[in-house]
Amino acid sequence: MSDAKSMPPIPLSDRWCWGSRQAISFLMEQGVDNPDILTLGAGLVDSESLPVEEVGQLIADICRDPVEGRAALQYGSTPGSPRLRTALLQHLAVLEGCSSAELGISAEQLLLTTGSQQLLSLVCEVLFNPGDIAFVAAPTYFVFLGTLAGVGARTIPIRSDEQGMVIDDLDRELARLAEAGELHRVKLIYLVSDFENPSGICLSAERRQQALVVARKWSCQQRILILEDAAYRELRYSGAAIPSIWGLDRDREYVILAQTFSKSFSPGLRVGYGVVPAGLAGPLADRKGNEDFGSAHFNQHLLARALESGVYTRHVAKVRRAYTIKRDALLAAADRYFSNIPGVSWVRPDGGLYVWMSLPREIPTSFESPLFKHATRAEQVMYVPGDLCYSGPLAERPRHQMRLSFGVLEPRLIDEAMKRLAKAVRRFA
Amino acid sequence: MSDAKSMPPIPLSDRWCWGSRQAISFLMEQGVDNPDILTLGAGLVDSESLPVEEVGQLIADICRDPVEGRAALQYGSTPGSPRLRTALLQHLAVLEGCSSAELGISAEQLLLTTGSQQLLSLVCEVLFNPGDIAFVAAPTYFVFLGTLAGVGARTIPIRSDEQGMVIDDLDRELARLAEAGELHRVKLIYLVSDFENPSGICLSAERRQQALVVARKWSCQQRILILEDAAYRELRYSGAAIPSIWGLDRDREYVILAQTFSKSFSPGLRVGYGVVPAGLAGPLADRKGNEDFGSAHFNQHLLARALESGVYTRHVAKVRRAYTIKRDALLAAADRYFSNIPGVSWVRPDGGLYVWMSLPREIPTSFESPLFKHATRAEQVMYVPGDLCYSGPLAERPRHQMRLSFGVLEPRLIDEAMKRLAKAVRRFA
Repeated sequence: MSDAKSMPPIPLSDRWCWGSRQAISFLMEQGVDNPDILTLGAGLVDSESLPVEEVGQLIADICRDPVEGRAALQYGSTPGSPRLRTALLQHLAVLEGCSSAELGISAEQLLLTTGSQQLLSLVCEVLFNPGDIAFVAAPTYFVFLGTLAGVGARTIPIRSDEQGMVIDDLDRELARLAEAGELHRVKLIYLVSDFENPSGICLSAERRQQALVVARKWSCQQRILILEDAAYRELRYSGAAIPSIWGLDRDREYVILAQTFSKSFSPGLRVGYGVVPAGLAGPLADRKGNEDFGSAHFNQHLLARALESGVYTRHVAKVRRAYTIKRDALLAAADRYFSNIPGVSWVRPDGGLYVWMSLPREIPTSFESPLFKHATRAEQVMYVPGDLCYSGPLAERPRHQMRLSFGVLEPRLIDEAMKRLAKAVRRFA
Repeated sequence: MSDAKSMPPIPLSDRWCWGSRQAISFLMEQGVDNPDILTLGAGLVDSESLPVEEVGQLIADICRDPVEGRAALQYGSTPGSPRLRTALLQHLAVLEGCSSAELGISAEQLLLTTGSQQLLSLVCEVLFNPGDIAFVAAPTYFVFLGTLAGVGARTIPIRSDEQGMVIDDLDRELARLAEAGELHRVKLIYLVSDFENPSGICLSAERRQQALVVARKWSCQQRILILEDAAYRELRYSGAAIPSIWGLDRDREYVILAQTFSKSFSPGLRVGYGVVPAGLAGPLADRKGNEDFGSAHFNQHLLARALESGVYTRHVAKVRRAYTIKRDALLAAADRYFSNIPGVSWVRPDGGLYVWMSLPREIPTSFESPLFKHATRAEQVMYVPGDLCYSGPLAERPRHQMRLSFGVLEPRLIDEAMKRLAKAVRRFA
């Protein structure tokens, strides 16, 4: 046995290094180290409304039939169960407000993944060489910033306002890159179209159309794709649905649509999916073949049955009711405890899981800030620091914002958590 | 709407290109195009012995308790369920013939993945820069060759004999690389220790010890890790178990042990796992965080219950009995139909799912060969061409071998398939 001190180091790859600074790990540690904390940070879903009985019944139905049971427990194909992909065409048609024939795609353009996160990751893998460029909104989904970093992407943030990413700014930035001879490095425009994580903002219908025009306009020698992350699409609590960017693209060639059952049904099943341009289905499946040759086939059967039987649709309605109450609880608590703190403002989202709150600029919210330390240690309440949701050097990011999730806590505890958080903020205001 | 002809191309990454030529896709297409074919090719498991009733019962138990049901349907952590990882420590101790304390590792060194394939892929992602070197046996598991290609690895094949990889040859190759100043590019030695896919050979106890000595010897400035793929470890039908390479490494620092429930319980659940050196657990979880932030938590709960209740152990015994009959059926059919064809030989495996057959050198077996075409079209029987299981340029690979799987077909059809295959071979002998 060799001396531990003499153990030579494990040489890690550049890619590991690029992708290794993940805030999510730190956040999870905070949760583990402070088990009694009230969390407005975690992106978990509402536990009470998880479909325990429904899943028990659906699986009993599957396992009652040995033929179906065996099929579900056997390997599937890399892109996923044809049965679920067919059911998803129907489901997508409902969301898009058309017939499945009018979707103009085949089931082969659907790829089933381990949550929609794997779809986001696979898209980056098949498109990006180190140094290639992605556009993101500022702020945006922080886990995806890590995924982009992991493939060595250059991430260019584009300002957001109350209508979402300012597409005029995107257009100007693309003109600048064209001028600099770098247009060929641009691969992707990432847009969380409904209830952006963290800001809760929906990209307006006009901006969606405009994003598509801009992607086409600058797709000169090669295509610039839009990755539309619609993870929260089915979690709308007020207001009318806005057509997806994917639906606006009549060619079905410029938009990758990522959706998931994690928020609307169960994250523990890890079933997400992508609707992709015909030419991208093969490359994504190739890559997935090397990564895992297929996500859990059993879970895909379960979701197929949930969709076919109507269990899914009924469940989503239930989930929406539960989250409407929680969103309203968080907004009411914000009114109650924050409205008399000068310089504090927040977005009132029509859906999703998050309320985005801005403090006066002189109150930083980051992990190292006095506020974060005081909130987590003394007040036992946690949030996600807003600076995580921006790309670029830490020192240049806005540091006075917080993502507040109403997913985990029950309404009474949401009120208590907001009360504690306001107390902590007041200390530094 | 733009003209389809004027659609600019989607620019794909180098990594996609490196990893895109996967034989598995072609094999699956063959299966789809020829649904009535008798397949000795597919690596699927025996359908009859899949644990349909057991899974139905275990999930009913989980869903009867709302607390456990909700926990299972909620997000888990990226490295996976602590409950399953703890149960796996116990299970690993049984396989290693020691107490779980004597394993000398913590549950944090277990990483749960989407099948063991994802573990293999993650290991490559965190270790390899393009041009880094991996050693593999010749022949070896063809899917892993694709995974290595996908990260731009240089794969160096090492000759195998009836004891597995010839470690003296590996040692000589490492000396040559040291001489050439390339030792720092060597990252991994890949060994399928039990019933190698495709050859069915076990690496002998002596060679296992020797592999460890060689890995240590050449770990000068940085560690050269052994990736021990033990996917078939629990599928032994005759002969005594051989200690794992992982178990021989008392430091627990040189070996990554990859195992899976896909072969012994159900591939449709996609639960695999790795036992990794302490310093590698964090980097692998970082990478997995970017790829999918955790495999299906629900399935991990199911497997934890299967292990804790003894259902798993009973099921593996049943699976072994089923495969023993099938292996014997294939070997008996080989004796019956092939023993009088000159120059044909085959390995008699003590476990796993495959029989490796060599034809006379002048009969190629590859996808483009007259034999493959005749077998699949006229005789309606399929096998995996042996050349897929070698790295390096196609023209330099042995092309006269076949991997015959006894996993899918029932014994009567195994006999029929072997009869048809012998008829096809005789046509070219």
